[in-house]
Amino acid sequence: MSKIKIGIVGGTGYTGVELLRLLAQHPQTELDVITSRGEAGMSVSDMFPSLRGRVDLPFTDPAQANLKSCDIVFFATPNGIAMQQTRELLDAGVRVIDLAADFRIKDIAVWEKWYGMAHACPDLVADAVYGLPEVNRESIRNARLVANPGCYPTAVQLGFMPLIEAGLVDAGRLIADVKSGTSGAGRKAETHTLHAEAADNFKAYGVAGHRHLPEISQGLAAMGSQPVGLTFVPHLTPMVRGIHATLYSTLSAECDLQTLFEQRYANEPFVDVMPKGAHPETRSVRGANVCRIAVHRPQGGDTVVVLSVIDNLVKGAAGQAVHNMNLMFGLPETAGLELVPLSP
Amino acid sequence: MSKIKIGIVGGTGYTGVELLRLLAQHPQTELDVITSRGEAGMSVSDMFPSLRGRVDLPFTDPAQANLKSCDIVFFATPNGIAMQQTRELLDAGVRVIDLAADFRIKDIAVWEKWYGMAHACPDLVADAVYGLPEVNRESIRNARLVANPGCYPTAVQLGFMPLIEAGLVDAGRLIADVKSGTSGAGRKAETHTLHAEAADNFKAYGVAGHRHLPEISQGLAAMGSQPVGLTFVPHLTPMVRGIHATLYSTLSAECDLQTLFEQRYANEPFVDVMPKGAHPETRSVRGANVCRIAVHRPQGGDTVVVLSVIDNLVKGAAGQAVHNMNLMFGLPETAGLELVPLSP
Amino acid sequence: MSKIKIGIVGGTGYTGVELLRLLAQHPQTELDVITSRGEAGMSVSDMFPSLRGRVDLPFTDPAQANLKSCDIVFFATPNGIAMQQTRELLDAGVRVIDLAADFRIKDIAVWEKWYGMAHACPDLVADAVYGLPEVNRESIRNARLVANPGCYPTAVQLGFMPLIEAGLVDAGRLIADVKSGTSGAGRKAETHTLHAEAADNFKAYGVAGHRHLPEISQGLAAMGSQPVGLTFVPHLTPMVRGIHATLYSTLSAECDLQTLFEQRYANEPFVDVMPKGAHPETRSVRGANVCRIAVHRPQGGDTVVVLSVIDNLVKGAAGQAVHNMNLMFGLPETAGLELVPLSP
Amino acid sequence: MSKIKIGIVGGTGYTGVELLRLLAQHPQTELDVITSRGEAGMSVSDMFPSLRGRVDLPFTDPAQANLKSCDIVFFATPNGIAMQQTRELLDAGVRVIDLAADFRIKDIAVWEKWYGMAHACPDLVADAVYGLPEVNRESIRNARLVANPGCYPTAVQLGFMPLIEAGLVDAGRLIADVKSGTSGAGRKAETHTLHAEAADNFKAYGVAGHRHLPEISQGLAAMGSQPVGLTFVPHLTPMVRGIHATLYSTLSAECDLQTLFEQRYANEPFVDVMPKGAHPETRSVRGANVCRIAVHRPQGGDTVVVLSVIDNLVKGAAGQAVHNMNLMFGLPETAGLELVPLSP
Repeated sequence: MSKIKIGIVGGTGYTGVELLRLLAQHPQTELDVITSRGEAGMSVSDMFPSLRGRVDLPFTDPAQANLKSCDIVFFATPNGIAMQQTRELLDAGVRVIDLAADFRIKDIAVWEKWYGMAHACPDLVADAVYGLPEVNRESIRNARLVANPGCYPTAVQLGFMPLIEAGLVDAGRLIADVKSGTSGAGRKAETHTLHAEAADNFKAYGVAGHRHLPEISQGLAAMGSQPVGLTFVPHLTPMVRGIHATLYSTLSAECDLQTLFEQRYANEPFVDVMPKGAHPETRSVRGANVCRIAVHRPQGGDTVVVLSVIDNLVKGAAGQAVHNMNLMFGLPETAGLELVPLSP
Repeated sequence: MSKIKIGIVGGTGYTGVELLRLLAQHPQTELDVITSRGEAGMSVSDMFPSLRGRVDLPFTDPAQANLKSCDIVFFATPNGIAMQQTRELLDAGVRVIDLAADFRIKDIAVWEKWYGMAHACPDLVADAVYGLPEVNRESIRNARLVANPGCYPTAVQLGFMPLIEAGLVDAGRLIADVKSGTSGAGRKAETHTLHAEAADNFKAYGVAGHRHLPEISQGLAAMGSQPVGLTFVPHLTPMVRGIHATLYSTLSAECDLQTLFEQRYANEPFVDVMPKGAHPETRSVRGANVCRIAVHRPQGGDTVVVLSVIDNLVKGAAGQAVHNMNLMFGLPETAGLELVPLSP
Repeated sequence: MSKIKIGIVGGTGYTGVELLRLLAQHPQTELDVITSRGEAGMSVSDMFPSLRGRVDLPFTDPAQANLKSCDIVFFATPNGIAMQQTRELLDAGVRVIDLAADFRIKDIAVWEKWYGMAHACPDLVADAVYGLPEVNRESIRNARLVANPGCYPTAVQLGFMPLIEAGLVDAGRLIADVKSGTSGAGRKAETHTLHAEAADNFKAYGVAGHRHLPEISQGLAAMGSQPVGLTFVPHLTPMVRGIHATLYSTLSAECDLQTLFEQRYANEPFVDVMPKGAHPETRSVRGANVCRIAVHRPQGGDTVVVLSVIDNLVKGAAGQAVHNMNLMFGLPETAGLELVPLSP
Repeated sequence: MSKIKIGIVGGTGYTGVELLRLLAQHPQTELDVITSRGEAGMSVSDMFPSLRGRVDLPFTDPAQANLKSCDIVFFATPNGIAMQQTRELLDAGVRVIDLAADFRIKDIAVWEKWYGMAHACPDLVADAVYGLPEVNRESIRNARLVANPGCYPTAVQLGFMPLIEAGLVDAGRLIADVKSGTSGAGRKAETHTLHAEAADNFKAYGVAGHRHLPEISQGLAAMGSQPVGLTFVPHLTPMVRGIHATLYSTLSAECDLQTLFEQRYANEPFVDVMPKGAHPETRSVRGANVCRIAVHRPQGGDTVVVLSVIDNLVKGAAGQAVHNMNLMFGLPETAGLELVPLSP
């Protein structure tokens, strides 16, 4: 089988460089084009020395890039870019995975409210498949356009899913207290994510409302048969990679929760249900495409506590995108994604 | 006024050295004795070079220490030590503040269950005043024996207090998702708190049950008139100092929450209610005896989210102990506690 | 004595906020004006919540600020600002301390080469006193204009000074391998100092040449009678505050180094010579106006290794500026500077 | 070709778990036995959840372990263990790589002085090959017993090597100022490497003498023809992985340093000479078996500054051990070692 020809639009952010790290180790892909408006002409490995000897391309100006010759194009761009360019690529027979939010929310009005702009192609949103393989595996196989999930939504949905699908908890009163490392804020130069501001510090942010709230709610609603009410509080924690979701819900029926989770994920290559009583740590998934989950019922009461950890740049972004690509091209799901986490 | 003569039992842990830092800057105290079984004879400032030129005592062997000549003795010891020595000191007219847990829980059976030992002096537990000044200010003034609150319990109780006292939330379904820096684990050599284990990592622990749960529940129950049901999930975050409590409860009546909090704490020198919409950061209280609180009601729903931050070693331990001492000796409450937080 | 009326130009960077922290605890000062072009009208404590309740001023637009009514004005601005405004203030009888580099280098050509701009007032450079009290105490007392030293230059000069003054080492072959926390890079939003870039990483920078090189060389040359040759390599280390200088030189004569250092600094309130064999840690000076120094002679050879640590924002910037102010106004040198380091 | 059967003695430290990470991804190895006295019977992946699903062995009691059936045994033990067990394994035809220091120093008296114990098998020391492939590649291919280099020695020797081999610098006056992440201190529970002690802190240690000094000196002496005089100052920096060596020497002859380094390492798969003017960062090698080097000559003077970075657990320990194994078994040198660094 010839290798899959890859294009990446916007390769200077963290999801872009993480895609490069994974694809450089993928047995079935060939990196053809990587664009950057600001850095055109610069060697990728001059910007990211960790890729020296492994990625030999320069950044290409988007206007010059021959993306239509690729088999698949990943958008690792800010929100609002992919929707401008996707139609042309699809029309040329190129498949597209957007790692930003342009195609994640089906309700265009909701999207436009939270993202503060008019959507350029609502019809493509309808066609796009939400790329959470544990939910949409079959649709992804046939998708032309995949909306790769957000990092928080991946950790939260996988943690709540068995409970919601089984109708075991009050879906109207869910709480997701979620903590992210600083790479989740991206590689933009901003004061509040400077090392001297964010190190040795902990804070919540966006309590009044965060863009991942409607994405999570949409996903959870589709899983169950009840209306979903979610309180979602993101926090910034002084580590580079990792998301830890602590999820609270109220049991409405008795159940062996450990068995429920183990059975739900028994055949999932990238979800690991930990033994009873475990506390998954973010470093146990650092650099790997894994979500580790533990389920607790403190003091035997009716509050279920689910702990769900991912690497925000892998299972929460680039790794999940590669998983989706593997599905779209009929490759083994784990191709290129068997890296062992880096710990310590 | 002559200076208060201070004794510290167990001065080699973080609460001990933090007491030393604060007392070295206190205008009305004089450090007389500091004990350590393991380090007797060693100069305090050889162990803690930050105190060079500021604390000139050696550690004294507990057996040799003349604690009875002190006006007050602080126990900065592991649990189970203060209860062995307190009666003798009280009988000698020395006042005592225990920074450990020996006198915090009124129900002896509960204490013995969570702390795994028989209590040495249940009658003194009955006499002891729980040293949360925002609740027990007047009792503390007259106390001979103060049980200094735990770090998590301080942050959680101050955050929930206005809601519970006002009877505005369902006290049967409270959630405290709390994150601590690593100094909260103490200065014991343990693998899981090594830098190489705890840095760049995030994890929950003790989800099945943590010793601070009964302490918090006891405190919250005393504030309201309903039975209290609390889910308490502590986490370890890779910073040195600080606790961030994210507290969830369900409103049972309408209320102007911002005003409620501001009024409750209007006269409290060490509780700062932040403006509406704020997100307090742990670094904003680093090194200072302050609890900063913000109250939110996401999307205008009935879930109240309170954010409460303290420095676990100051308002969560040594600073609160000094506050209690100030009350016990009729000093201005803020004496020695006006240090401005260190940020960044 | 009436309080000293203080003005601060450029109060939104780290040296500015650190000045505020120190001055808010200083018994003899009164903060009158703090300017910021970008944040005029905003409350200082809204930007820096650590100052809530302690600094009640808003930022003032520089054009509106009545700096001439102050007794002293601190410039906590980027390089090139103070030189534009100092003459007018001096003419109005206001004393000035510049925490940036405008007045540090006596040789204007050298300054212009390293700072890349024409100097606006070379005559004032000649008048300015270099504000390293351990060298220029008496001149500082009478100075109208003080050039506050850079952070690296403070740590390096204090470490080498006893050796150079005594003529004991080959001044033509000095090496300063220096490591700085990230607050030394300032509060500008830049990619390379983002938490996700700078945490869990270590790097050298500016090996080809750093602006502090000529400043250090000028200072060391003035101390001795030999020409100075210095190799200066700065590094960025993933902590917020602190500089650790490791200094290498070759002994040219025998000497009891420990005694030499102890005698040189015997009367210095802010230099602490550690016991023989010690390794000073940056956290032992965190938040305090202290330089701790240890001197070693590994394997008894002729290479002297000096270890010198400071808090870059205190002894390396704002604290030293307050020390200079104390000298200029005849206050006790330690006024407002007796804060105990925050450790851990 | 059948897979190489691997035994690991002492698998609970950082070099042990790192060996497991690398070997789990190695195409030609099969992990047969891993021993631990303290954790016998425990599943490896229960102790190291990052290995869940990738390493399915339990720890075996050393007394029960059938190490003689292995093709090769790695000792990831404290110093002094391998020398007790190596002869029996070699006699049984098993090859051995010791990641500790037992076989690194040829001069037994020197070893005994620095390591504080009598050596159990001086004759095997004479046979052992020092496992720095860039120096001893051919000897390693035929070795029965390889002494895997220390982490500091790897970074320092590779940095100085081109200069020493070419006789271009004064080997009698070398300075190595080296900074290590905290994983270099191992997984022992000790106070000084607790997160709350080591985070947000920087310090030198062992300035009077460190065990890696004789190892480095021995290696450098073998490279050149001059006696070696080395000042070696290690430091602890608050990151988990990584060593940054800043190396100083004095040029004794003119040379194009960039070309010298590039030519020396042109055929080395795991040494990357960076472009002129570069500053290698430790994160650029995180998790990978690479040493990145840059060479500088500040201000065109006669002081050469070499910057050399490695991941202490990979090129400084487990990765180099796997490289040695590859050489010993005739595998491609890069087998299992092509992992791309994890950055950010």
